[in-house]
Amino acid sequence: MAGPWQKLPPRRGHDARATGPRDRREGAPHADAATPRDPAPRVPARRGEEVRLHGLNAVRALFQARPEALRKLYLTQARVPALKPLLAWCVANRVGYRVVEEADLNKLAASAHHEGVVADVLRRPPLTLEAWLAALPAGPALALWLDGVGNPHNFGAILRSAAHFGVAGLLLPQDSPLALSGAAARVAEGGAEAVPLVQAGDSASAFATLRAAGFGLAATLVEGGDNLFAAKLPQRLVYVMGAEGEGMDRNLAKTCDLTLSIPGTGRVESLNVASATAVLLAQWASVINFPTI
Amino acid sequence: MAGPWQKLPPRRGHDARATGPRDRREGAPHADAATPRDPAPRVPARRGEEVRLHGLNAVRALFQARPEALRKLYLTQARVPALKPLLAWCVANRVGYRVVEEADLNKLAASAHHEGVVADVLRRPPLTLEAWLAALPAGPALALWLDGVGNPHNFGAILRSAAHFGVAGLLLPQDSPLALSGAAARVAEGGAEAVPLVQAGDSASAFATLRAAGFGLAATLVEGGDNLFAAKLPQRLVYVMGAEGEGMDRNLAKTCDLTLSIPGTGRVESLNVASATAVLLAQWASVINFPTI
Repeated sequence: MAGPWQKLPPRRGHDARATGPRDRREGAPHADAATPRDPAPRVPARRGEEVRLHGLNAVRALFQARPEALRKLYLTQARVPALKPLLAWCVANRVGYRVVEEADLNKLAASAHHEGVVADVLRRPPLTLEAWLAALPAGPALALWLDGVGNPHNFGAILRSAAHFGVAGLLLPQDSPLALSGAAARVAEGGAEAVPLVQAGDSASAFATLRAAGFGLAATLVEGGDNLFAAKLPQRLVYVMGAEGEGMDRNLAKTCDLTLSIPGTGRVESLNVASATAVLLAQWASVINFPTI
Repeated sequence: MAGPWQKLPPRRGHDARATGPRDRREGAPHADAATPRDPAPRVPARRGEEVRLHGLNAVRALFQARPEALRKLYLTQARVPALKPLLAWCVANRVGYRVVEEADLNKLAASAHHEGVVADVLRRPPLTLEAWLAALPAGPALALWLDGVGNPHNFGAILRSAAHFGVAGLLLPQDSPLALSGAAARVAEGGAEAVPLVQAGDSASAFATLRAAGFGLAATLVEGGDNLFAAKLPQRLVYVMGAEGEGMDRNLAKTCDLTLSIPGTGRVESLNVASATAVLLAQWASVINFPTI
């Protein structure tokens, strides 16, 4: 391991759980013998409470949106200049950071795509559907219902497009296996902090609640739906996206208010779900409510 | 290793180079001792001549478009029913195939995303710009200039969208490091066989040749370009796509006929290059020349 813990002051209270258990569990760097470790008692993190982010934009976006969620930071020497404000914040707020080698970050991130920085952060708790709707401003709004998207790269790319096009929320059905992973957050390039995740419960009652709030529900089908580019889209819209491979559940599609397809040559079966999502979001934004550049 | 070579007849002529060298070089399964190996002389494949595809749709699309390019096929027992026509063709044309275990395919594909099938195939030689233009029908046409897209997943996703929206060609600049990899072809889901790759040479002379053929060149910028959704797009259009991260070369952008951006919230720096490409292609297709569903 390259560097000792940098300027790690004694920890107290909720900050304490940032260290200790993760180090043992996930092979994080150990303190250099010349730099005594923080002697404060360690409170183990609850399962699922933390997520390990990597990637410069993912970490920067977390810091801008929720600096208090930062539990621990690892970075290469080369990244120190770019992350000065973050490091200053760490010092002021007694959050541990450590300068390590590339190879250490590869292990910590379980990926070579860390761009010189890894951070352990507290997860943002997902909203309930009711809380999300209560906080939503009146007027046009766009949301995505993710019915089975499982690939973290697709999820990350969808988050990034959702942030770009001003999506108000990502609605996850009951028992969705989706949770923000480090890989998804890296691919999202900061989008994970810009778009709220909503635990929306079972589709029947969630769809009813959304309709009562003025939303139309659009099933998105690989083929057989109305031409997206000719369809009249509602001011408040939820696109229901299906899983990679199978596409969306046909029974769920039947309970939607409209069904849409993106016309094409048929030379490939379909678009990638993240590419299709980008096209769908762009179409709504361009005809209903394009955010300012 | 699970199975011996299935029904592998003696090879002759150009078929011979499909075996032998690859087996030693890339750890392919060896013949079962009970099944004598093809005794024909092996002609080593020239470097870069073959590519190893994986993924059901990638292999099926290759078989539909260029069955004669198939050099060798590996599949799991579970994939035999789905690939019956391919196997029949292999038998009739003396192309070797082998039923192996999942773990063998993981090694052969250097990926767990093989979907039960791996194939060694001859690369499709890229076209020259002149040959591509000569074969292009009159009327509306859309092409992509890929200035530095390096990630095989993005390249694969771009190929898939390009096939969906009827893109006439993917133009690669001089010294482009891009070549179709197994990962790109798998992500393209068959799109690699539907869209010609064109070695377009240096940008200055290629842009001049394209303009002489009636194409307008559109630089695509993360910000500062004209709003894509308000711009008048030409009937014949080349979108010039930049690299992930840096975006497109500003000097190259200056030599284009129009500059376009996809407006957004600014909450993320930009869209992923594959998502941006899908949005750009959809916009041209929806206003100029949408292919039939």
